[in-house]
Amino acid sequence: MGAITRMCWTERLAVDAEVVRRAVERGEIDPVDPEHVIEAVLGPPYFHLLVTDRPVSDDFLVATVDLVVRGLRR
Amino acid sequence: MGAITRMCWTERLAVDAEVVRRAVERGEIDPVDPEHVIEAVLGPPYFHLLVTDRPVSDDFLVATVDLVVRGLRR
Repeated sequence: MGAITRMCWTERLAVDAEVVRRAVERGEIDPVDPEHVIEAVLGPPYFHLLVTDRPVSDDFLVATVDLVVRGLRR
Repeated sequence: MGAITRMCWTERLAVDAEVVRRAVERGEIDPVDPEHVIEAVLGPPYFHLLVTDRPVSDDFLVATVDLVVRGLRR
């Protein structure tokens, strides 16, 4: 089960990370680990839902993306 | 069980958030939701460990904190 979970997420993160990789290629942001950026966006809502056991609001998602995007160097 | 989880995390996040609240008071960062900042730091490692089922490295933690700290407006 652990192996299947890892395999699914490895593929999912690689697809999502392509968006960040292309932004780096276009010079829109400084070089960064693309998968880490995706995990920085997905992590807080999953933490909020699964660990703290609270529903995720639209405001929470927007605040998460805003914080991460501001953290990317340009 | 859900109620106990929420209660524990509500208290835990409030304690952690005090660090961010004081940074805002000192004018070191612009006003921000202190608990959201804590969740932005705790979320990615928990996501990495619990959702993608992979161990969390020191580098992962450092990269997470760096990204969040850079995202805070000054």
